[in-house]
Amino acid sequence: MNAEIIAVGSELLTSERLDTNSLYLTGRLNALGVEVVYKCVVGDDRARLSDAVRLAAGRSEIVVLTGGLGPTEDDITRDAVAAALGRGMSFRQEIADHIQARFARMGRQMAEINRRQALVLDGAEALANPNGTAPGQWIESDGRAVMLLPGPPVELEPMFERECLPRLERMVPPLVLRTRFYRVAGMAESDLDQLISPVYKPYANPVTTILAAPGDIQIHLRARCPTLAEAEALLAELGAGIEALLGDRIYSRTGEPLERVVGDLLRQRRETLAVAESCTGGLLGERLTSVAGSSDYFSGGFLVYTDAMKTALLGVGVQLLAEHSAVSPQAAEAMAMGARERTGATWALSVTGIAGPAGGAEDKPVGTVFTALAGPDGVCSLRSRFLGNRARVRALAAQTALDLLRKKLNAAPG
Amino acid sequence: MNAEIIAVGSELLTSERLDTNSLYLTGRLNALGVEVVYKCVVGDDRARLSDAVRLAAGRSEIVVLTGGLGPTEDDITRDAVAAALGRGMSFRQEIADHIQARFARMGRQMAEINRRQALVLDGAEALANPNGTAPGQWIESDGRAVMLLPGPPVELEPMFERECLPRLERMVPPLVLRTRFYRVAGMAESDLDQLISPVYKPYANPVTTILAAPGDIQIHLRARCPTLAEAEALLAELGAGIEALLGDRIYSRTGEPLERVVGDLLRQRRETLAVAESCTGGLLGERLTSVAGSSDYFSGGFLVYTDAMKTALLGVGVQLLAEHSAVSPQAAEAMAMGARERTGATWALSVTGIAGPAGGAEDKPVGTVFTALAGPDGVCSLRSRFLGNRARVRALAAQTALDLLRKKLNAAPG
Repeated sequence: MNAEIIAVGSELLTSERLDTNSLYLTGRLNALGVEVVYKCVVGDDRARLSDAVRLAAGRSEIVVLTGGLGPTEDDITRDAVAAALGRGMSFRQEIADHIQARFARMGRQMAEINRRQALVLDGAEALANPNGTAPGQWIESDGRAVMLLPGPPVELEPMFERECLPRLERMVPPLVLRTRFYRVAGMAESDLDQLISPVYKPYANPVTTILAAPGDIQIHLRARCPTLAEAEALLAELGAGIEALLGDRIYSRTGEPLERVVGDLLRQRRETLAVAESCTGGLLGERLTSVAGSSDYFSGGFLVYTDAMKTALLGVGVQLLAEHSAVSPQAAEAMAMGARERTGATWALSVTGIAGPAGGAEDKPVGTVFTALAGPDGVCSLRSRFLGNRARVRALAAQTALDLLRKKLNAAPG
Repeated sequence: MNAEIIAVGSELLTSERLDTNSLYLTGRLNALGVEVVYKCVVGDDRARLSDAVRLAAGRSEIVVLTGGLGPTEDDITRDAVAAALGRGMSFRQEIADHIQARFARMGRQMAEINRRQALVLDGAEALANPNGTAPGQWIESDGRAVMLLPGPPVELEPMFERECLPRLERMVPPLVLRTRFYRVAGMAESDLDQLISPVYKPYANPVTTILAAPGDIQIHLRARCPTLAEAEALLAELGAGIEALLGDRIYSRTGEPLERVVGDLLRQRRETLAVAESCTGGLLGERLTSVAGSSDYFSGGFLVYTDAMKTALLGVGVQLLAEHSAVSPQAAEAMAMGARERTGATWALSVTGIAGPAGGAEDKPVGTVFTALAGPDGVCSLRSRFLGNRARVRALAAQTALDLLRKKLNAAPG
């Protein structure tokens, strides 16, 4: 089965923005065994969008449209698809009521133009949107489907997972697809690939995909077989080879991010964590608390961006800072110990470094970062040198700190 | 004049890769006053590519194809464009000689299949490719142009600069493109559109585009006129109407994010800022310190995720928390005052709320957030109710806190 993806919105035709929803959608469709054969971006132009929909629906079984479902005049997807498919639209009072209730919960009045979002194509099912006002729409006939989805990823992705995937699974002929994930911290993509490619290259099935973010590599194995047993056997065989090579550098086998893995370890041990952040400025705390329920183990922390704050909030000695500077193992360790003492947490992580672009020196160039971990048995620190811009250095610093704690917890079972 | 961009290659239809050449090409075309009205990605499929070229060439003056000019069977661009335009192809010995010489310089033999790269469409000009084997092709007739360019950016960009731009400048009537940005905090997209659409709707030129992220709306105005003065005059006219309606809700006229706008205000005033974060867990500090040079005004902060930490680190009274709970205006204000006192900063922002998914109550449902600002003249707080998932509630809370400070600074010039 083939699919096409049509992204709608003039903002996606500027020189600054790309349609990234199609990557997520392609991943999901591929996992069902559906190939994406064409994708396009159309501006807010009714005629061009209708042409695109007509062409796509005429040659591919699945057509996914994203965006253009908002309440304003330039949100043209509903109209254009109705014209392309030769269908009418009708106003659904229950959707308007739902939108109105959503506004009411925010203590606001629904604007008159939002009524447009309650227009549904004849024969379409409305798809619930818990994160926005615009419902999606699903139009299916003769084993073919056209779906209209909202543009913001935070609305699109849950809707696709909950509403579209079950409908697609019903439509698409069965070929079992099984996946396995690994997430690896603390390796460069090229080093990892050089290490494991002799193992995965001989396999055309499972397909191996490597995705790299700063300090965080995801390895996806996808096996597609007539039976579940065959798919599982292939994954187990290839997976064993990869695990043998990567060992403890694999921090997750389920696709969970590092902050969740570390959080689960802490929760199991009934231990707590505090942070002291200089160059990451809150990123480490932000990641830890992005996990629902993190108050079970995250005590709190200190953003000590200036030397004065390191002394005032964490008791880092003025003498120590004068002698070693704030970017030193001594400062990192004093920060971690200060945070642990002041919060009473079991563990405290600290980060101090030079995120750039300015502030580098010959012995401590931009990208130099010290992370430290204080715990029941003392304190240790790690020196790293990260390459890249400010955002990348900060991301790598936070990742390195979390991985320092993960390794410590794994090495000293609670 | 309108342009369309067609990227060719099945690798661009996977879940890992995007066609980024189109961003470069769009920037260059826009600078000439040419608008990109459609772009698409086609796999290595002759029929679908021919359809795409036929449709594009039939409705837009400029069609740019990238990729598919290699020597192998699945490099189909030449064939598909010839079929779409109803043109033949002929072998050009001088191009084959040139490719052969290139191979010879690398000490290699030209493979027989590379002869395919010397096929040129009837009536086309070959475009030199100093960085690769495949020449580009330029087909112009009746004031319209179709160009075939190689996919690798290192080949495409120099070819476009040297070969295509001069030809396009000859073709395109001189038209100046000028843009203006506004960024607006604290409004829902539909409310904003209802407010300003009566002002921008009457203008076909400038084109108005509205982009919404949680708590952050961007308005882009793009004027295309024969002269710079006319474009500027149109933008000034429409801009004045929009500014009159939005007033202080506009926080940026240059596209800069809110954390940078607030930071610049603080730097000008030589004032400093501290934060006290509960439900945002570091997000506010992370945003503030994502700006290089933020140590000029950002003192530091406290991540007080538990009640115990609010008391221990910020001195929020046990009695106060018992009476009003941690999610209350009283707690938010005490957090802000505590952070200001302990850091000596001019201002302190605090955030406390229920990010969800759990923790809501009838009088304080999930999404209830209090932000407070303490400053030289006292403390104030704001109650908000945000809808959406945990990430969205946290994003809106951080944005609301930053905007609270921005408005205060604007209202009380330093």
